[in-house]
Amino acid sequence: MSDELTRGFPEQEFATRTAAAQARMAETGLAGMLLLSEAELRYFSGFHTLFWQSPTRPWFLFVPLEGKPIAIIPEIGAALMRQTWVEDIRTWAAPAPDDDGISLLTDLLSPLAARGATIGVMKGHETALRMPLGDYERLMAQLPGLHIADCTAIVRGLRMVKSEREIEKLTRICAIGSHTFAEVPMLAHEGQAFEDTFRAFRREALLQGADDVPYLVGGADQGGYHDVISPPSRRPLQKGDIMMLDTGMTWDGYFCDFDRNWAIGQADDASRRAYDVLWRATEAGIAAARPGATCADLFHAMQRVISELDQSGASDGDVGRLGHGLGMQLTEWPSHVAWDQTVIEENMVLTLEPSLSYGDGRIMVHEENIVVRAEGAELLSHRAAPELPVIS
Amino acid sequence: MSDELTRGFPEQEFATRTAAAQARMAETGLAGMLLLSEAELRYFSGFHTLFWQSPTRPWFLFVPLEGKPIAIIPEIGAALMRQTWVEDIRTWAAPAPDDDGISLLTDLLSPLAARGATIGVMKGHETALRMPLGDYERLMAQLPGLHIADCTAIVRGLRMVKSEREIEKLTRICAIGSHTFAEVPMLAHEGQAFEDTFRAFRREALLQGADDVPYLVGGADQGGYHDVISPPSRRPLQKGDIMMLDTGMTWDGYFCDFDRNWAIGQADDASRRAYDVLWRATEAGIAAARPGATCADLFHAMQRVISELDQSGASDGDVGRLGHGLGMQLTEWPSHVAWDQTVIEENMVLTLEPSLSYGDGRIMVHEENIVVRAEGAELLSHRAAPELPVIS
Repeated sequence: MSDELTRGFPEQEFATRTAAAQARMAETGLAGMLLLSEAELRYFSGFHTLFWQSPTRPWFLFVPLEGKPIAIIPEIGAALMRQTWVEDIRTWAAPAPDDDGISLLTDLLSPLAARGATIGVMKGHETALRMPLGDYERLMAQLPGLHIADCTAIVRGLRMVKSEREIEKLTRICAIGSHTFAEVPMLAHEGQAFEDTFRAFRREALLQGADDVPYLVGGADQGGYHDVISPPSRRPLQKGDIMMLDTGMTWDGYFCDFDRNWAIGQADDASRRAYDVLWRATEAGIAAARPGATCADLFHAMQRVISELDQSGASDGDVGRLGHGLGMQLTEWPSHVAWDQTVIEENMVLTLEPSLSYGDGRIMVHEENIVVRAEGAELLSHRAAPELPVIS
Repeated sequence: MSDELTRGFPEQEFATRTAAAQARMAETGLAGMLLLSEAELRYFSGFHTLFWQSPTRPWFLFVPLEGKPIAIIPEIGAALMRQTWVEDIRTWAAPAPDDDGISLLTDLLSPLAARGATIGVMKGHETALRMPLGDYERLMAQLPGLHIADCTAIVRGLRMVKSEREIEKLTRICAIGSHTFAEVPMLAHEGQAFEDTFRAFRREALLQGADDVPYLVGGADQGGYHDVISPPSRRPLQKGDIMMLDTGMTWDGYFCDFDRNWAIGQADDASRRAYDVLWRATEAGIAAARPGATCADLFHAMQRVISELDQSGASDGDVGRLGHGLGMQLTEWPSHVAWDQTVIEENMVLTLEPSLSYGDGRIMVHEENIVVRAEGAELLSHRAAPELPVIS
C-alpha cells in the first residue's frame, strides 16, 4: 500500500464537525453535549489511543454551543490530548473512585444547571454509558437544575455521513482486507487447525498493512457452518467443509467489515446454491444503494432474492439485519432492516450483509462494503467471486 | 508453546463461581444480579466471542439467588450460548430499538418487583453500563417496585482471586508476551518507522502463539519518551532513542499486560538511571506482594524507591497508579495506590508498574506480571534485564 495517505485529520475537519453539531444543538435547544465514548471523543477531538482497552478510567468531552470542545480527562491522557486541536484540557489524577472527574464536571456544568439549561447525553440505540452508573447518578444529583436530553440523533446524523478524508481511510482498509482475503487459498488448507487459519490470517493482514485486526470470527463445518460469531476451535479443516472468515481490520482507527466463504476441497450443491443466492442478493443491494432510497428499501431488495431459498424460521440463525453503517466502529447506524426508514445519503459507508439458513441448521453470510455516491454505490471491498471458491 | 492446555473451562468452574456469587448475594439480601458486560457474562456463563466489538446489541445475564444463570440475548448469539452450561436462554430478533430485550427483562424481573425485591447491577468503579441509558431508564420505570443495589463489590471480590485454570491461561499468555519481547532486538532497528516496529511486534506475537494483540502502545524519542498511551507514528527510530512497548496480548480471553524499554544504539545516563530505579522499584514490589499486605503497601514499597529519582510534579506525567489487577481485562481491580486498602490474597494476579518522570518532560514505565502465592510473588513475565538493554 502507498504510504502517502497521512494519519489523522487537519484541524479543519474537527472544526467542521463541531460547527455542524453546534448548528443542530442550536436547533434543538441544547446548551452542550457531554460525550463519554471512544468514537465520539475521537470524532470531535482527534484523541486516538488504544488505551480505551482499559476500563478503569472515564473520559469526558463537552461540546459547548459555541467554541471548541472541552476535555475533562485523566492526567495520563493529557500529553496526547495536547496534540489535538482541543485547548481547554482539565485533568485529574485518575483512578480516583471517590471523584473520577465528578468535581470537574460539576464545576463545568453548574452554571448551566443554575439557569435550567438542557444538555445532551447519548442515551439511544447502539450506545452505552461509559462511566460508572453510580457516578452518573451522583453527578445528576449534584446538578438538580440541569436537564438531560438524548442527543444520539445529532451525533448519529453527523457520523453516518463520511467526509472524503474518512472515505480515504475506509477505502484503504477495505483494500487491505481484500488483499488479505485474496491470500487465504494460499494460507488455509485441509488438515489445518482452524485456530491456525485465524492466526495466519491475522499475520497476513498485518503484512498487507492493517494496523490491527480487532475482529475476526468464522465458521467451518461439513456442508456449511452453524454459527457466525464464534472464536476458532482446534478442529482441523476437512474436505467438504464450508469455511467463512469475517473480519474487522483497522487502519488509522477506521474499520472494514466483510467476510468471504470457501469450500475446502469440494463444495456441496446446497452450499453452492446458497452462495449463488447471497451473491445475487448482494448485487441487488448494490443496485438499490442510491441516495434517496431507505435502509428498508435495501433490506427488501436483498430479502426478495434471499426468499428464493431461505428456509429459516423466524428465530433460527437470525442475524437480525442485512447490513449496517461502517466507520470508526465495526458496526454503526443505520441498519438494513424493515423498520429502519433512514434515508441513504451520499457519502454514507455501508455494509451489505445478506444471510440465510439452509439444510440442517446451516447458515451462510456474505458481506461487501460500499460508499454511496451521487450515482450509486461504489464497492470498497473487492467483489467476492460469483461462485463459491474451492480451496484445493 | 504446548497445545495441551485446553481452551475454556469445565462446567464445574462456572458452577463454583455462581455458587460463590450466590452465597454473597444471600449475605447482602440480593435476589439476583443483572449483568451486562463482556467480562461478567463470560465469567458466569463461558460465553466467549469477539462479537462484543459491535456496539449494536445489548446482552444480559441474570444470576438468580439459586440455580444457573439465565441468558437474555440477541438471537445471533443463541447457537454459541447453547454450547455453554447455561440452559435457560431467551432470545429476541435484535437489533430492535423499540424493544432490545426490555420486554424479556420485564417478564423476568416483574415477579421480583412485585415483592419489592432488590437486585444487583454493577454501578461502581471501573464499570460501565453496556446498554443504552434510555433503555435502562425505561426498564426501571416499568418495574417501580424493584430496588437496585450496586453489586460491584461482589463481582470484584470473586474476579480478583483467580482459579488455577485461570492462572494457567495467564501464565501461558505472559510467557508468549515474554518470548515476543525477547525477539524485539531482532525486529527493531535504527531507521525503522515506529509504526513498522509495532506491525513486526504484532506479527511476532501471533507467531509465538497469541490469539490477538488488543493492546499495543509505546513511545520512542531522543533521551526518553513523553507519553505512554500513544499509537505509533511513522517517525524512524533514531540512535539515542529510548523506546518502550507496552502490550496486552490474549490467549483464550486472558490478558498479559507488561512493557519493556530499550535504547536504540546508545543509552544516555539519565535514562539508564531512571531504568535502574524502576527496576529496583519493581524488585521492591515483588518482595512486598504477599498475602496480607495491602495494595497501599505495594504502592509505598515501590514509591520509596522511585522517590530517589522522581522529579515529577503532582500532575506531570501522572499515570495514576503503580499497577493493578489482570485477567479477562487488560486492567482490573485492585489498584496499587495509597487509597486502595484491598488486602492482597493468594492467587491474585497483578501487574507491578512503577513509573517516573525525569529530565525535560520524559516519562519511563516498567511493568511485570505476578501471581501471588502463599509464599509470595511468582513472576509470570520473564523478568526484565537489570540494565537498560541497547539495540545495536
